[in-house]
Amino acid sequence: LDIDLVPCYAVASATEIKSAVDRTPFHTRYIRAHIDGYVDDILLAKQFAKAGGVYGSDHMTGGFSGYLCEILTIYYGGFRPFLEAAARWVLGEVIDIEHHGTKEFDEPLVVIDPVDPERNVAAALTVSRMFEFVELARGYLKEPSDMFFCRPPPPLLSREVFARLLAARGTYLFTITFATPGYTADTVVPQLRKSAGSILELLDRSGFPANRIDTCMQKDHCMLLFELMAEEVPVVRRHIGPPVWSPENAMKFVDKYVHDGVFAGPYIEDGRYVVELPRTFTRAVDLLRSGEILEVSLGRHVRRSMENGWTVNAGAECWDEEFAGFLSEFFGRSSPLVRIRRVTGT
Amino acid sequence: LDIDLVPCYAVASATEIKSAVDRTPFHTRYIRAHIDGYVDDILLAKQFAKAGGVYGSDHMTGGFSGYLCEILTIYYGGFRPFLEAAARWVLGEVIDIEHHGTKEFDEPLVVIDPVDPERNVAAALTVSRMFEFVELARGYLKEPSDMFFCRPPPPLLSREVFARLLAARGTYLFTITFATPGYTADTVVPQLRKSAGSILELLDRSGFPANRIDTCMQKDHCMLLFELMAEEVPVVRRHIGPPVWSPENAMKFVDKYVHDGVFAGPYIEDGRYVVELPRTFTRAVDLLRSGEILEVSLGRHVRRSMENGWTVNAGAECWDEEFAGFLSEFFGRSSPLVRIRRVTGT
Repeated sequence: LDIDLVPCYAVASATEIKSAVDRTPFHTRYIRAHIDGYVDDILLAKQFAKAGGVYGSDHMTGGFSGYLCEILTIYYGGFRPFLEAAARWVLGEVIDIEHHGTKEFDEPLVVIDPVDPERNVAAALTVSRMFEFVELARGYLKEPSDMFFCRPPPPLLSREVFARLLAARGTYLFTITFATPGYTADTVVPQLRKSAGSILELLDRSGFPANRIDTCMQKDHCMLLFELMAEEVPVVRRHIGPPVWSPENAMKFVDKYVHDGVFAGPYIEDGRYVVELPRTFTRAVDLLRSGEILEVSLGRHVRRSMENGWTVNAGAECWDEEFAGFLSEFFGRSSPLVRIRRVTGT
Repeated sequence: LDIDLVPCYAVASATEIKSAVDRTPFHTRYIRAHIDGYVDDILLAKQFAKAGGVYGSDHMTGGFSGYLCEILTIYYGGFRPFLEAAARWVLGEVIDIEHHGTKEFDEPLVVIDPVDPERNVAAALTVSRMFEFVELARGYLKEPSDMFFCRPPPPLLSREVFARLLAARGTYLFTITFATPGYTADTVVPQLRKSAGSILELLDRSGFPANRIDTCMQKDHCMLLFELMAEEVPVVRRHIGPPVWSPENAMKFVDKYVHDGVFAGPYIEDGRYVVELPRTFTRAVDLLRSGEILEVSLGRHVRRSMENGWTVNAGAECWDEEFAGFLSEFFGRSSPLVRIRRVTGT
């Protein structure tokens, strides 16, 4: 048995905390003072959120923390009233239990901490997790079932089924894998998302629009996944120049391209110069394997790891046992309620 | 010798006209009263605009009318001062010769008619033609040459060279041709442009983005030309549904797709439902040959003609002797000044 002893400062009120954990005793005191009669309801609420995949305020999940489940169950007066209220939540919902909020928050759900008027307890909750909870609440109220408390994990695909599903979609799958940086998931996961977003923009402006992207951190490797609508694009690309009413820039632009081996132009479109140039990369795989990837805005630890090398796979070659669960989830992606309704046939 | 006699009403001032031609005598009178000493300059200005391809206020050209060339040359005090002024024009330039304008216009160039304060003489001028004139003016002032007054027509491609250029670009060319409606170019040409724009939107939302489009009206046939970046796209497409905070629509959307043979989803992204469905058309040529084309907003006479049938060609098969000039221009598209500088090597 390992026990972590976490020291904290003894402060007089939660607003005077010196370290994040100093707030914990106030939370414990608040819950102890209000939990009477709600113990079972809180357990139900937490299990409901857990089975729905929306429990946990870590960056990977972006869901509901234990404390958030506790205070919402107490505030609404039980598990069922909590679900009934959640079913009607809107984007930007504000709940101020102690009516002492002093700040404006622009997060999807705002729950003012009953022990600290300046803190949003739901700060880590993403729009997607918030509304997955909303739809689970509506689904449960309409048709309750055990599935809402113990959902079986989604089926794991085999390499063969994965290849067959990809062929049916007709899209072009690419993965970038590299060694997992030696930091916690809460540090690495946001960096994976930021990096994938930046590479998505690079792909898009290079002529390769995506259907969907995702990221995954495992013990040894991280994966950035891109499902593209094209793997190869024409060599011609339009390059938009300055407006003609900006004489110096206009002249510079024409001087640059007038005797160049361009496909067409410079010509004038809606008052701006346009020239048609050859692309550097006509194949997505060449772009993803190139140094251009390191030029975009990657997370710091992701960049460090990728500087030691990364692997690009394409199509069915993207299958990787280390990421079997992640890859299976990607193709079968559905909201939590849709999964339950598919299993229960409702 | 044929002579058209066009009758007009004798009205006291140009503001009281009953038919469009009633204004003509006032224009003639105005020019006669002001032309002294500018006859040669006006001829130069018109020839300059003609050789630059920006002369003519018909819908096909969208350029400078003869009257516009006349009053601008007179207003600025000669051909060269006119060019010097045009070289500095900005978008939305307003010229009110008689300081009697009474209306706001939002056209790219506004020249209040000296005989009618409510009329913009440059109403038909497009942004592109206006700034092609601007760049020609700048180019001439910097490096005058005969080429500005007698530009040779662009080289005509052969079927073979056309096919070779298309292969080099790597893009996917498609043409729609149909019988020319029995109306004037001023009626048909705007309808061709509107129709091509609507079909462009249909292609775009069907997954086929374009590099460039163009239209051409010949005696017997009209052509809509689409240069696409893809001829075939994956069968998967994303269909964006309602936000989860709109309970009735959300429930209807999930009910519709929960037990359907969808590729993935419905899942929740930024609070909205998304579902991945199969596309109706994965090949651009099938879409262009389908009845969907008649469902978009086509020009009236274009629709009537297309209801009697249209032909779709792809790639090198788009070559058509009737449209040799148009097709040659399409690939070689450049601004008037760029063409002159390429010939003169400046």
